[in-house]
Amino acid sequence: MSPAGEPGAQVQADLDRLLPLLDGALTVPFQEGAAARLGEAMRYSLEAGGKRVRPVLCILAAEAVGGTAAQALPGALALEYIHTYSLIHDDLPAMDDDDLRRGRPTNHKVFGEGHAILAGDALLTEAFGVLAGADLDPNRRAEALILLAEGAGWRGMAGGQALDLEGEQVAAYDLDHLRLIHRMKTGALLQSALEIGAVLGGADPGQRAALRACGAALGLAFQIQDDILDATATEVQLGKRTGKDAGKGKITYPSLLGLDGARRALAEATETALCHLATLPNRPSLEAWARYLAQRAK
Amino acid sequence: MSPAGEPGAQVQADLDRLLPLLDGALTVPFQEGAAARLGEAMRYSLEAGGKRVRPVLCILAAEAVGGTAAQALPGALALEYIHTYSLIHDDLPAMDDDDLRRGRPTNHKVFGEGHAILAGDALLTEAFGVLAGADLDPNRRAEALILLAEGAGWRGMAGGQALDLEGEQVAAYDLDHLRLIHRMKTGALLQSALEIGAVLGGADPGQRAALRACGAALGLAFQIQDDILDATATEVQLGKRTGKDAGKGKITYPSLLGLDGARRALAEATETALCHLATLPNRPSLEAWARYLAQRAK
Repeated sequence: MSPAGEPGAQVQADLDRLLPLLDGALTVPFQEGAAARLGEAMRYSLEAGGKRVRPVLCILAAEAVGGTAAQALPGALALEYIHTYSLIHDDLPAMDDDDLRRGRPTNHKVFGEGHAILAGDALLTEAFGVLAGADLDPNRRAEALILLAEGAGWRGMAGGQALDLEGEQVAAYDLDHLRLIHRMKTGALLQSALEIGAVLGGADPGQRAALRACGAALGLAFQIQDDILDATATEVQLGKRTGKDAGKGKITYPSLLGLDGARRALAEATETALCHLATLPNRPSLEAWARYLAQRAK
Repeated sequence: MSPAGEPGAQVQADLDRLLPLLDGALTVPFQEGAAARLGEAMRYSLEAGGKRVRPVLCILAAEAVGGTAAQALPGALALEYIHTYSLIHDDLPAMDDDDLRRGRPTNHKVFGEGHAILAGDALLTEAFGVLAGADLDPNRRAEALILLAEGAGWRGMAGGQALDLEGEQVAAYDLDHLRLIHRMKTGALLQSALEIGAVLGGADPGQRAALRACGAALGLAFQIQDDILDATATEVQLGKRTGKDAGKGKITYPSLLGLDGARRALAEATETALCHLATLPNRPSLEAWARYLAQRAK
Protein backbone atom coordinates (compact mmCIF):
# COMPACT_ATOMS: atom_id res chain seq x y z
CA MET A 1 0.00 0.00 0.00
CA SER A 2 1.34 3.45 -0.94
CA PRO A 3 1.72 6.17 1.74
CA ALA A 4 -1.43 8.27 2.27
CA GLY A 5 -1.63 11.08 -0.28
CA GLU A 6 0.71 9.47 -2.81
CA PRO A 7 -0.59 7.92 -6.02
CA GLY A 8 -0.63 4.12 -5.73
CA ALA A 9 0.80 1.78 -8.36
CA GLN A 10 -2.33 1.73 -10.53
CA VAL A 11 -2.79 5.53 -10.50
CA GLN A 12 0.91 6.02 -11.22
CA ALA A 13 0.72 3.57 -14.12
CA ASP A 14 -2.28 5.43 -15.56
CA LEU A 15 -0.46 8.75 -15.20
CA ASP A 16 2.68 7.38 -16.86
CA ARG A 17 0.61 6.10 -19.74
CA LEU A 18 -1.83 9.00 -20.22
CA LEU A 19 0.03 12.19 -19.24
CA PRO A 20 2.42 12.10 -22.24
CA LEU A 21 -0.58 11.54 -24.52
CA LEU A 22 -2.49 14.47 -23.01
CA ASP A 23 0.40 16.89 -22.61
CA GLY A 24 1.46 16.26 -26.20
CA ALA A 25 -2.00 17.16 -27.46
CA LEU A 26 -2.84 20.00 -25.06
CA THR A 27 -1.23 22.91 -26.81
CA VAL A 28 -2.04 26.02 -28.80
CA PRO A 29 -0.06 25.94 -32.03
CA PHE A 30 1.74 29.09 -33.06
CA GLN A 31 0.05 30.64 -36.08
CA GLU A 32 1.35 33.34 -38.38
CA GLY A 33 -0.74 36.53 -38.26
CA ALA A 34 -2.71 35.39 -35.22
CA ALA A 35 -2.96 36.97 -31.79
CA ALA A 36 0.43 35.78 -30.57
CA ARG A 37 0.26 37.14 -27.03
CA LEU A 38 -3.19 35.64 -26.50
CA GLY A 39 -1.90 32.27 -27.71
CA GLU A 40 0.95 32.62 -25.23
CA ALA A 41 -1.47 33.36 -22.39
CA MET A 42 -3.53 30.29 -23.31
CA ARG A 43 -0.42 28.09 -23.42
CA TYR A 44 0.88 29.45 -20.11
CA SER A 45 -2.08 28.06 -18.20
CA LEU A 46 -2.59 24.94 -20.33
CA GLU A 47 1.01 23.87 -19.88
CA ALA A 48 1.06 24.52 -16.14
CA GLY A 49 0.24 20.84 -15.93
CA GLY A 50 -1.26 19.23 -12.89
CA LYS A 51 -2.63 15.72 -12.73
CA ARG A 52 -5.13 16.26 -15.58
CA VAL A 53 -7.80 14.64 -13.41
CA ARG A 54 -10.77 15.34 -15.69
CA PRO A 55 -9.26 14.14 -18.97
CA VAL A 56 -7.73 11.08 -17.28
CA LEU A 57 -11.09 10.16 -15.75
CA CYS A 58 -12.76 10.64 -19.13
CA ILE A 59 -10.37 8.22 -20.82
CA LEU A 60 -10.57 5.71 -17.96
CA ALA A 61 -14.38 5.81 -18.18
CA ALA A 62 -14.20 4.98 -21.89
CA GLU A 63 -11.79 2.13 -21.18
CA ALA A 64 -13.98 0.89 -18.33
CA VAL A 65 -16.72 0.07 -20.83
CA GLY A 66 -14.37 -1.43 -23.43
CA GLY A 67 -13.57 1.73 -25.43
CA THR A 68 -10.13 3.14 -26.22
CA ALA A 69 -8.10 6.17 -25.16
CA ALA A 70 -8.06 7.34 -28.79
CA GLN A 71 -11.87 7.40 -28.89
CA ALA A 72 -12.08 9.47 -25.71
CA LEU A 73 -9.12 11.78 -26.40
CA PRO A 74 -11.06 14.67 -28.05
CA GLY A 75 -13.45 14.72 -25.10
CA ALA A 76 -10.54 14.56 -22.69
CA LEU A 77 -8.83 17.54 -24.32
CA ALA A 78 -12.06 19.53 -24.35
CA LEU A 79 -12.52 18.92 -20.63
CA GLU A 80 -9.02 20.15 -19.82
CA TYR A 81 -9.52 23.29 -21.94
CA ILE A 82 -12.71 23.97 -19.98
CA HIS A 83 -11.06 23.29 -16.64
CA THR A 84 -8.10 25.53 -17.51
CA TYR A 85 -10.34 28.41 -18.60
CA SER A 86 -12.30 28.12 -15.35
CA LEU A 87 -9.11 28.37 -13.28
CA ILE A 88 -8.01 31.51 -15.15
CA HIS A 89 -11.36 33.24 -14.67
CA ASP A 90 -11.81 32.07 -11.05
CA ASP A 91 -8.43 33.58 -10.15
CA LEU A 92 -9.37 37.06 -11.44
CA PRO A 93 -9.59 39.95 -8.96
CA ALA A 94 -13.38 40.17 -9.48
CA MET A 95 -13.72 36.49 -8.53
CA ASP A 96 -11.44 34.70 -6.02
CA ASP A 97 -8.54 37.16 -6.51
CA ASP A 98 -5.63 34.71 -6.38
CA ASP A 99 -2.00 35.46 -7.22
CA LEU A 100 -0.68 31.90 -7.18
CA ARG A 101 -1.78 28.76 -9.02
CA ARG A 102 0.12 25.49 -9.33
CA GLY A 103 3.10 27.27 -7.78
CA ARG A 104 3.25 29.98 -10.48
CA PRO A 105 1.80 33.51 -10.76
CA THR A 106 -1.80 33.39 -12.00
CA ASN A 107 -2.57 34.23 -15.63
CA HIS A 108 -3.71 37.82 -15.03
CA LYS A 109 -0.61 38.52 -12.93
CA VAL A 110 1.53 37.69 -15.97
CA PHE A 111 -0.60 38.82 -18.92
CA GLY A 112 -2.94 41.40 -17.40
CA GLU A 113 -6.65 41.09 -16.67
CA GLY A 114 -7.88 41.78 -20.21
CA HIS A 115 -5.77 39.05 -21.73
CA ALA A 116 -6.58 36.64 -18.91
CA ILE A 117 -10.31 37.10 -19.55
CA LEU A 118 -9.75 36.57 -23.29
CA ALA A 119 -7.46 33.58 -22.75
CA GLY A 120 -10.24 31.97 -20.74
CA ASP A 121 -12.81 32.83 -23.41
CA ALA A 122 -10.60 31.42 -26.14
CA LEU A 123 -9.88 28.19 -24.25
CA LEU A 124 -13.59 27.72 -23.60
CA THR A 125 -14.25 28.22 -27.31
CA GLU A 126 -11.40 25.89 -28.28
CA ALA A 127 -12.87 23.16 -26.07
CA PHE A 128 -15.94 22.98 -28.27
CA GLY A 129 -13.87 23.43 -31.42
CA VAL A 130 -11.59 20.50 -30.73
CA LEU A 131 -14.49 18.18 -29.94
CA ALA A 132 -16.66 19.35 -32.86
CA GLY A 133 -13.76 18.88 -35.26
CA ALA A 134 -12.80 15.41 -34.07
CA ASP A 135 -13.15 12.41 -36.35
CA LEU A 136 -15.76 10.56 -34.27
CA ASP A 137 -19.11 8.91 -34.74
CA PRO A 138 -21.37 11.98 -35.35
CA ASN A 139 -24.01 10.97 -32.82
CA ARG A 140 -21.51 10.24 -30.06
CA ARG A 141 -19.77 13.53 -30.81
CA ALA A 142 -23.02 15.49 -30.55
CA GLU A 143 -23.90 13.76 -27.25
CA ALA A 144 -20.46 14.61 -25.88
CA LEU A 145 -20.82 18.26 -26.92
CA ILE A 146 -24.20 18.51 -25.19
CA LEU A 147 -22.75 16.98 -22.01
CA LEU A 148 -19.81 19.38 -22.12
CA ALA A 149 -22.13 22.39 -22.37
CA GLU A 150 -24.29 21.03 -19.54
CA GLY A 151 -21.35 20.46 -17.22
CA ALA A 152 -19.65 23.77 -17.96
CA GLY A 153 -22.57 26.19 -18.31
CA TRP A 154 -24.97 28.05 -16.06
CA ARG A 155 -26.69 24.84 -14.94
CA GLY A 156 -23.27 23.45 -14.04
CA MET A 157 -19.83 24.88 -13.34
CA ALA A 158 -20.40 28.55 -14.22
CA GLY A 159 -23.64 28.55 -12.22
CA GLY A 160 -21.87 26.99 -9.25
CA GLN A 161 -19.17 29.64 -9.33
CA ALA A 162 -21.87 32.33 -9.38
CA LEU A 163 -23.57 30.80 -6.33
CA ASP A 164 -20.20 30.57 -4.63
CA LEU A 165 -19.59 34.28 -5.27
CA GLU A 166 -23.00 35.09 -3.80
CA GLY A 167 -22.31 32.82 -0.81
CA GLU A 168 -21.64 35.46 1.78
CA GLN A 169 -25.00 37.12 1.12
CA VAL A 170 -27.11 33.99 1.55
CA ALA A 171 -29.00 34.10 4.87
CA ALA A 172 -29.73 30.39 5.33
CA TYR A 173 -26.45 28.88 4.16
CA ASP A 174 -26.78 25.27 5.27
CA LEU A 175 -25.41 21.91 4.21
CA ASP A 176 -28.00 21.61 1.44
CA HIS A 177 -26.93 24.91 -0.10
CA LEU A 178 -23.26 23.95 0.20
CA ARG A 179 -24.00 20.62 -1.51
CA LEU A 180 -25.79 22.44 -4.35
CA ILE A 181 -22.78 24.71 -4.91
CA HIS A 182 -20.35 21.81 -4.84
CA ARG A 183 -22.53 19.74 -7.15
CA MET A 184 -22.62 22.53 -9.70
CA LYS A 185 -19.17 24.07 -9.31
CA THR A 186 -17.06 20.92 -9.19
CA GLY A 187 -19.40 17.97 -9.54
CA ALA A 188 -21.05 18.86 -12.83
CA LEU A 189 -17.85 18.88 -14.90
CA LEU A 190 -16.49 15.72 -13.25
CA GLN A 191 -19.82 14.06 -13.92
CA SER A 192 -19.58 15.21 -17.54
CA ALA A 193 -16.02 13.85 -17.70
CA LEU A 194 -17.14 10.35 -16.83
CA GLU A 195 -20.29 10.49 -18.93
CA ILE A 196 -18.46 11.87 -21.97
CA GLY A 197 -15.96 9.05 -21.60
CA ALA A 198 -18.86 6.60 -21.41
CA VAL A 199 -20.48 7.99 -24.55
CA LEU A 200 -17.27 8.17 -26.59
CA GLY A 201 -16.27 4.69 -25.41
CA GLY A 202 -19.57 3.20 -26.58
CA ALA A 203 -21.26 2.50 -23.23
CA ASP A 204 -24.71 0.93 -23.16
CA PRO A 205 -27.42 3.00 -21.37
CA GLY A 206 -26.95 1.20 -18.04
CA GLN A 207 -23.18 1.69 -18.08
CA ARG A 208 -23.61 5.34 -19.03
CA ALA A 209 -26.00 5.93 -16.13
CA ALA A 210 -23.61 4.18 -13.73
CA LEU A 211 -20.66 6.32 -14.83
CA ARG A 212 -22.77 9.48 -14.60
CA ALA A 213 -23.78 8.62 -11.03
CA CYS A 214 -20.20 7.70 -10.16
CA GLY A 215 -19.06 11.07 -11.53
CA ALA A 216 -21.54 12.96 -9.37
CA ALA A 217 -20.36 11.21 -6.20
CA LEU A 218 -16.71 11.59 -7.20
CA GLY A 219 -17.25 15.31 -7.78
CA LEU A 220 -18.65 15.72 -4.30
CA ALA A 221 -15.78 13.75 -2.78
CA PHE A 222 -13.26 15.80 -4.74
CA GLN A 223 -14.66 19.08 -3.47
CA ILE A 224 -14.87 17.93 0.16
CA GLN A 225 -11.21 16.93 -0.02
CA ASP A 226 -10.48 20.35 -1.55
CA ASP A 227 -12.13 22.02 1.46
CA ILE A 228 -10.22 19.76 3.86
CA LEU A 229 -6.91 20.50 2.14
CA ASP A 230 -7.58 24.24 2.19
CA ALA A 231 -8.07 23.99 5.96
CA THR A 232 -5.11 21.71 6.71
CA ALA A 233 -2.37 21.77 4.06
CA THR A 234 0.36 24.36 3.55
CA GLU A 235 0.74 26.74 0.64
CA VAL A 236 3.98 25.01 -0.41
CA GLN A 237 2.22 21.64 -0.56
CA LEU A 238 -0.67 22.91 -2.69
CA GLY A 239 1.11 25.48 -4.87
CA LYS A 240 -1.69 27.94 -4.12
CA ARG A 241 -2.88 30.07 -1.23
CA THR A 242 -4.42 28.07 1.62
CA GLY A 243 -6.62 28.94 4.55
CA LYS A 244 -8.38 31.38 2.27
CA ASP A 245 -11.80 29.83 2.96
CA ALA A 246 -11.48 30.43 6.71
CA GLY A 247 -9.93 33.85 6.09
CA LYS A 248 -13.03 34.88 4.16
CA GLY A 249 -15.41 33.29 6.67
CA LYS A 250 -16.43 31.03 3.79
CA ILE A 251 -18.71 28.12 4.53
CA THR A 252 -17.12 24.75 3.78
CA TYR A 253 -17.53 21.13 4.77
CA PRO A 254 -15.07 21.47 7.67
CA SER A 255 -16.71 24.69 8.88
CA LEU A 256 -20.18 23.09 8.84
CA LEU A 257 -19.33 19.56 9.98
CA GLY A 258 -15.92 19.88 11.64
CA LEU A 259 -12.86 18.13 10.22
CA ASP A 260 -13.97 14.68 11.38
CA GLY A 261 -17.47 15.17 10.00
CA ALA A 262 -16.03 16.34 6.68
CA ARG A 263 -13.79 13.26 6.54
CA ARG A 264 -16.81 11.01 7.17
CA ALA A 265 -18.76 12.75 4.38
CA LEU A 266 -15.75 12.28 2.10
CA ALA A 267 -15.54 8.55 2.86
CA GLU A 268 -19.27 8.18 2.24
CA ALA A 269 -19.16 9.97 -1.14
CA THR A 270 -16.17 7.86 -2.18
CA GLU A 271 -17.97 4.63 -1.27
CA THR A 272 -20.97 5.78 -3.31
CA ALA A 273 -18.72 6.45 -6.29
CA LEU A 274 -17.12 3.00 -6.00
CA CYS A 275 -20.49 1.33 -5.64
CA HIS A 276 -21.64 2.65 -9.03
CA LEU A 277 -18.63 1.09 -10.73
CA ALA A 278 -19.36 -2.41 -9.47
CA THR A 279 -20.87 -3.80 -12.69
CA LEU A 280 -18.41 -2.33 -15.22
CA PRO A 281 -16.19 -4.80 -17.10
CA ASN A 282 -12.88 -2.95 -16.72
CA ARG A 283 -13.00 -0.92 -13.52
CA PRO A 284 -9.69 -1.27 -11.54
CA SER A 285 -8.24 2.03 -12.75
CA LEU A 286 -11.35 4.09 -11.96
CA GLU A 287 -11.58 2.43 -8.54
CA ALA A 288 -7.96 3.25 -7.80
CA TRP A 289 -8.50 6.86 -8.89
CA ALA A 290 -11.63 7.25 -6.75
CA ARG A 291 -9.65 6.11 -3.69
CA TYR A 292 -6.66 8.24 -4.61
CA LEU A 293 -8.66 11.44 -5.18
CA ALA A 294 -10.21 11.08 -1.71
CA GLN A 295 -6.82 10.86 0.02
CA ARG A 296 -4.72 13.07 -2.24
CA ALA A 297 -2.38 15.54 -0.54
CA LYS A 298 -2.86 18.34 -3.09
CA MET B 1 -35.59 54.98 -51.48
CA SER B 2 -35.58 55.23 -47.70
CA PRO B 3 -33.77 58.07 -45.90
CA ALA B 4 -30.08 57.40 -45.33
CA GLY B 5 -29.54 55.38 -42.17
CA GLU B 6 -33.10 54.00 -42.01
CA PRO B 7 -33.85 50.38 -42.89
CA GLY B 8 -35.43 50.18 -46.35
CA ALA B 9 -38.56 48.19 -47.13
CA GLN B 10 -36.78 44.85 -47.64
CA VAL B 11 -34.69 45.15 -44.47
CA GLN B 12 -37.77 46.20 -42.49
CA ALA B 13 -39.74 43.26 -43.87
CA ASP B 14 -36.94 40.86 -42.85
CA LEU B 15 -36.84 42.41 -39.38
CA ASP B 16 -40.62 42.16 -38.99
CA ARG B 17 -40.52 38.52 -40.00
CA LEU B 18 -37.37 37.37 -38.16
CA LEU B 19 -37.14 39.46 -34.97
CA PRO B 20 -40.19 37.84 -33.30
CA LEU B 21 -38.78 34.41 -34.17
CA LEU B 22 -35.37 35.26 -32.71
CA ASP B 23 -36.54 37.19 -29.66
CA GLY B 24 -38.95 34.40 -28.79
CA ALA B 25 -36.14 31.85 -28.84
CA LEU B 26 -33.34 33.95 -27.32
CA THR B 27 -33.99 33.48 -23.66
CA VAL B 28 -32.63 31.70 -20.60
CA PRO B 29 -35.46 29.73 -19.02
CA PHE B 30 -35.89 29.99 -15.26
CA GLN B 31 -34.86 26.75 -13.61
CA GLU B 32 -35.53 25.60 -10.05
CA GLY B 33 -32.34 25.11 -8.02
CA ALA B 34 -30.16 26.84 -10.63
CA ALA B 35 -28.04 29.96 -10.32
CA ALA B 36 -30.95 32.42 -10.53
CA ARG B 37 -28.93 35.63 -10.44
CA LEU B 38 -26.59 34.40 -13.15
CA GLY B 39 -29.58 33.50 -15.31
CA GLU B 40 -30.90 37.01 -14.73
CA ALA B 41 -27.58 38.54 -15.79
CA MET B 42 -27.58 36.44 -18.97
CA ARG B 43 -31.16 37.44 -19.78
CA TYR B 44 -30.44 41.13 -19.10
CA SER B 45 -27.97 41.34 -21.95
CA LEU B 46 -29.68 38.85 -24.28
CA GLU B 47 -32.97 40.72 -24.05
CA ALA B 48 -31.41 44.14 -24.59
CA GLY B 49 -32.30 43.54 -28.20
CA GLY B 50 -30.69 45.36 -31.05
CA LYS B 51 -31.07 44.46 -34.70
CA ARG B 52 -29.77 40.91 -34.26
CA VAL B 53 -27.53 41.43 -37.28
CA ARG B 54 -25.60 38.16 -37.03
CA PRO B 55 -28.54 35.80 -36.59
CA VAL B 56 -30.56 37.60 -39.26
CA LEU B 57 -27.66 37.33 -41.73
CA CYS B 58 -27.26 33.65 -40.87
CA ILE B 59 -30.91 32.95 -41.67
CA LEU B 60 -30.84 35.07 -44.82
CA ALA B 61 -27.76 33.19 -46.02
CA ALA B 62 -29.58 29.89 -45.57
CA GLU B 63 -32.58 31.25 -47.47
CA ALA B 64 -30.33 32.66 -50.20
CA VAL B 65 -29.33 29.10 -51.13
CA GLY B 66 -32.83 27.68 -50.86
CA GLY B 67 -32.82 26.62 -47.20
CA THR B 68 -35.29 27.65 -44.49
CA ALA B 69 -35.23 29.86 -41.40
CA ALA B 70 -36.02 26.80 -39.27
CA GLN B 71 -32.90 25.02 -40.53
CA ALA B 72 -30.70 27.99 -39.71
CA LEU B 73 -32.33 28.99 -36.42
CA PRO B 74 -30.03 27.00 -34.05
CA GLY B 75 -26.99 28.55 -35.73
CA ALA B 76 -28.61 31.98 -35.56
CA LEU B 77 -29.25 31.65 -31.82
CA ALA B 78 -25.73 30.41 -31.19
CA LEU B 79 -24.31 33.44 -33.02
CA GLU B 80 -26.34 35.87 -30.93
CA TYR B 81 -25.29 34.14 -27.70
CA ILE B 82 -21.67 34.54 -28.81
CA HIS B 83 -22.15 38.16 -29.82
CA THR B 84 -23.88 38.97 -26.52
CA TYR B 85 -21.14 37.35 -24.45
CA SER B 86 -18.52 39.33 -26.37
CA LEU B 87 -20.30 42.62 -25.62
CA ILE B 88 -20.46 41.82 -21.91
CA HIS B 89 -16.76 40.96 -21.70
CA ASP B 90 -15.65 43.83 -23.96
CA ASP B 91 -17.43 46.33 -21.69
CA LEU B 92 -15.55 45.16 -18.57
CA PRO B 93 -13.21 47.62 -16.82
CA ALA B 94 -10.17 45.49 -17.81
CA MET B 95 -11.21 45.76 -21.47
CA ASP B 96 -13.00 48.78 -23.00
CA ASP B 97 -14.45 49.91 -19.65
CA ASP B 98 -17.88 51.03 -20.82
CA ASP B 99 -20.84 51.99 -18.62
CA LEU B 100 -23.49 52.19 -21.32
CA ARG B 101 -24.66 49.69 -23.96
CA ARG B 102 -27.79 49.86 -26.07
CA GLY B 103 -28.92 52.77 -23.89
CA ARG B 104 -28.76 50.78 -20.65
CA PRO B 105 -26.10 50.32 -17.96
CA THR B 106 -23.62 47.61 -18.96
CA ASN B 107 -23.89 44.16 -17.41
CA HIS B 108 -21.13 44.59 -14.82
CA LYS B 109 -22.65 47.92 -13.72
CA VAL B 110 -25.84 46.08 -12.79
CA PHE B 111 -24.63 42.65 -11.68
CA GLY B 112 -21.00 43.26 -10.68
CA GLU B 113 -17.83 42.23 -12.47
CA GLY B 114 -17.75 38.63 -11.25
CA HIS B 115 -21.26 37.90 -12.45
CA ALA B 116 -20.66 39.73 -15.72
CA ILE B 117 -17.62 37.56 -16.45
CA LEU B 118 -19.64 34.43 -15.60
CA ALA B 119 -22.68 35.56 -17.60
CA GLY B 120 -20.40 35.92 -20.62
CA ASP B 121 -18.84 32.52 -19.98
CA ALA B 122 -22.25 30.91 -19.61
CA LEU B 123 -23.62 32.52 -22.79
CA LEU B 124 -20.55 31.37 -24.71
CA THR B 125 -21.09 27.85 -23.40
CA GLU B 126 -24.82 27.97 -24.16
CA ALA B 127 -24.05 28.95 -27.77
CA PHE B 128 -22.38 25.61 -28.36
CA GLY B 129 -24.98 23.79 -26.27
CA VAL B 130 -27.94 25.08 -28.27
CA LEU B 131 -26.30 24.20 -31.57
CA ALA B 132 -25.03 20.78 -30.44
CA GLY B 133 -28.48 19.90 -29.11
CA ALA B 134 -30.41 20.97 -32.22
CA ASP B 135 -32.27 18.44 -34.31
CA LEU B 136 -30.22 18.89 -37.49
CA ASP B 137 -28.37 16.77 -39.99
CA PRO B 138 -25.35 15.59 -37.90
CA ASN B 139 -22.73 16.52 -40.49
CA ARG B 140 -24.13 20.02 -41.07
CA ARG B 141 -24.36 20.52 -37.32
CA ALA B 142 -20.73 19.52 -36.81
CA GLU B 143 -19.61 21.84 -39.63
CA ALA B 144 -21.55 24.71 -38.08
CA LEU B 145 -20.01 24.07 -34.66
CA ILE B 146 -16.50 24.10 -36.14
CA LEU B 147 -17.25 27.40 -37.93
CA LEU B 148 -18.63 28.91 -34.73
CA ALA B 149 -15.47 28.01 -32.80
CA GLU B 150 -13.30 29.39 -35.62
CA GLY B 151 -15.15 32.69 -35.79
CA ALA B 152 -15.33 33.20 -32.02
CA GLY B 153 -11.99 31.87 -30.81
CA TRP B 154 -8.39 32.99 -30.69
CA ARG B 155 -8.01 32.85 -34.47
CA GLY B 156 -11.10 35.03 -34.75
CA MET B 157 -13.05 37.35 -32.48
CA ALA B 158 -11.25 36.75 -29.17
CA GLY B 159 -7.89 37.08 -30.91
CA GLY B 160 -8.98 40.33 -32.56
CA GLN B 161 -10.05 41.78 -29.23
CA ALA B 162 -6.65 40.84 -27.79
CA LEU B 163 -4.85 42.61 -30.66
CA ASP B 164 -7.14 45.60 -30.17
CA LEU B 165 -6.21 45.75 -26.47
CA GLU B 166 -2.53 45.61 -27.40
CA GLY B 167 -3.02 48.28 -30.04
CA GLU B 168 -1.47 51.20 -28.23
CA GLN B 169 1.80 49.31 -27.75
CA VAL B 170 2.28 48.37 -31.41
CA ALA B 171 5.04 50.48 -32.95
CA ALA B 172 4.15 50.09 -36.64
CA TYR B 173 0.39 50.37 -36.47
CA ASP B 174 -0.58 50.77 -40.12
CA LEU B 175 -3.57 50.03 -42.30
CA ASP B 176 -2.55 46.36 -42.67
CA HIS B 177 -2.52 45.90 -38.91
CA LEU B 178 -5.86 47.68 -38.55
CA ARG B 179 -7.33 45.43 -41.24
CA LEU B 180 -6.06 42.35 -39.42
CA ILE B 181 -7.71 43.49 -36.20
CA HIS B 182 -10.98 44.27 -37.93
CA ARG B 183 -10.95 41.01 -39.85
CA MET B 184 -10.51 39.04 -36.64
CA LYS B 185 -12.52 41.11 -34.17
CA THR B 186 -15.63 41.77 -36.25
CA GLY B 187 -15.15 40.07 -39.60
CA ALA B 188 -14.54 36.53 -38.39
CA LEU B 189 -17.90 36.14 -36.64
CA LEU B 190 -19.86 37.82 -39.46
CA GLN B 191 -18.10 35.52 -41.90
CA SER B 192 -19.06 32.56 -39.71
CA ALA B 193 -22.64 33.84 -39.60
CA LEU B 194 -22.98 33.69 -43.37
CA GLU B 195 -21.08 30.44 -43.75
CA ILE B 196 -23.03 28.74 -40.95
CA GLY B 197 -26.23 29.84 -42.69
CA ALA B 198 -24.86 28.42 -45.94
CA VAL B 199 -24.03 25.08 -44.34
CA LEU B 200 -27.31 24.73 -42.44
CA GLY B 201 -29.28 25.80 -45.53
CA GLY B 202 -27.65 23.10 -47.65
CA ALA B 203 -25.38 25.25 -49.87
CA ASP B 204 -23.21 23.56 -52.50
CA PRO B 205 -19.44 24.18 -52.16
CA GLY B 206 -19.44 27.14 -54.57
CA GLN B 207 -22.33 28.85 -52.79
CA ARG B 208 -20.68 28.24 -49.45
CA ALA B 209 -17.42 29.82 -50.62
CA ALA B 210 -19.31 32.81 -52.04
CA LEU B 211 -21.17 33.41 -48.78
CA ARG B 212 -17.96 33.04 -46.80
CA ALA B 213 -16.25 35.66 -48.99
CA CYS B 214 -19.28 37.92 -48.79
CA GLY B 215 -19.20 37.63 -44.99
CA ALA B 216 -15.55 38.65 -44.83
CA ALA B 217 -16.19 41.80 -46.91
CA LEU B 218 -19.36 42.57 -44.99
CA GLY B 219 -17.49 42.27 -41.71
CA LEU B 220 -14.91 44.77 -42.89
CA ALA B 221 -17.61 47.18 -44.08
CA PHE B 222 -19.47 46.80 -40.80
CA GLN B 223 -16.40 47.69 -38.75
CA ILE B 224 -15.45 50.67 -40.93
CA GLN B 225 -18.97 52.03 -40.47
CA ASP B 226 -18.59 51.42 -36.71
CA ASP B 227 -15.42 53.53 -36.72
CA ILE B 228 -17.15 56.25 -38.76
CA LEU B 229 -20.14 56.31 -36.42
CA ASP B 230 -17.92 56.49 -33.35
CA ALA B 231 -16.28 59.57 -34.86
CA THR B 232 -19.46 61.29 -36.07
CA ALA B 233 -22.64 60.19 -34.25
CA THR B 234 -23.88 61.27 -30.84
CA GLU B 235 -24.15 59.14 -27.73
CA VAL B 236 -27.95 59.44 -27.78
CA GLN B 237 -28.08 58.13 -31.35
CA LEU B 238 -25.91 55.10 -30.59
CA GLY B 239 -27.01 54.28 -27.04
CA LYS B 240 -23.33 53.95 -26.09
CA ARG B 241 -20.36 56.22 -25.46
CA THR B 242 -18.99 57.81 -28.65
CA GLY B 243 -15.76 59.54 -29.54
CA LYS B 244 -14.04 57.00 -27.32
CA ASP B 245 -11.66 55.91 -30.08
CA ALA B 246 -10.34 59.44 -30.55
CA GLY B 247 -10.32 59.97 -26.77
CA LYS B 248 -7.98 57.00 -26.39
CA GLY B 249 -5.85 58.01 -29.38
CA LYS B 250 -7.02 54.75 -30.92
CA ILE B 251 -6.19 54.04 -34.53
CA THR B 252 -9.27 53.69 -36.73
CA TYR B 253 -10.19 53.96 -40.40
CA PRO B 254 -11.04 57.67 -40.10
CA SER B 255 -7.83 58.39 -38.17
CA LEU B 256 -5.69 56.62 -40.80
CA LEU B 257 -7.58 57.58 -43.98
CA GLY B 258 -9.65 60.62 -42.98
CA LEU B 259 -13.45 60.50 -43.02
CA ASP B 260 -13.67 60.60 -46.82
CA GLY B 261 -11.05 57.89 -47.23
CA ALA B 262 -12.90 55.74 -44.69
CA ARG B 263 -16.15 56.24 -46.59
CA ARG B 264 -14.47 55.17 -49.83
CA ALA B 265 -13.08 52.03 -48.14
CA LEU B 266 -16.56 51.32 -46.82
CA ALA B 267 -18.13 51.64 -50.27
CA GLU B 268 -15.45 49.37 -51.73
CA ALA B 269 -15.94 46.65 -49.10
CA THR B 270 -19.70 46.81 -49.60
CA GLU B 271 -19.34 46.41 -53.38
CA THR B 272 -17.10 43.41 -52.81
CA ALA B 273 -19.70 41.87 -50.53
CA LEU B 274 -22.44 42.43 -53.10
CA CYS B 275 -20.29 41.02 -55.87
CA HIS B 276 -19.96 37.67 -54.10
CA LEU B 277 -23.73 37.33 -53.92
CA ALA B 278 -24.25 37.68 -57.66
CA THR B 279 -24.77 33.98 -58.44
CA LEU B 280 -27.04 33.03 -55.52
CA PRO B 281 -30.61 32.06 -56.38
CA ASN B 282 -32.38 34.08 -53.69
CA ARG B 283 -30.26 37.12 -52.87
CA PRO B 284 -32.43 40.31 -52.61
CA SER B 285 -32.56 40.29 -48.80
CA LEU B 286 -28.83 39.84 -48.34
CA GLU B 287 -28.16 42.57 -50.91
CA ALA B 288 -30.51 44.96 -49.12
CA TRP B 289 -28.84 44.18 -45.79
CA ALA B 290 -25.34 44.72 -47.18
CA ARG B 291 -26.39 48.19 -48.40
CA TYR B 292 -28.22 48.97 -45.18
CA LEU B 293 -25.34 47.94 -42.89
CA ALA B 294 -23.00 50.28 -44.78
CA GLN B 295 -25.25 53.30 -44.29
CA ARG B 296 -26.83 52.47 -40.92
CA ALA B 297 -27.06 55.34 -38.42
CA LYS B 298 -26.31 53.22 -35.34
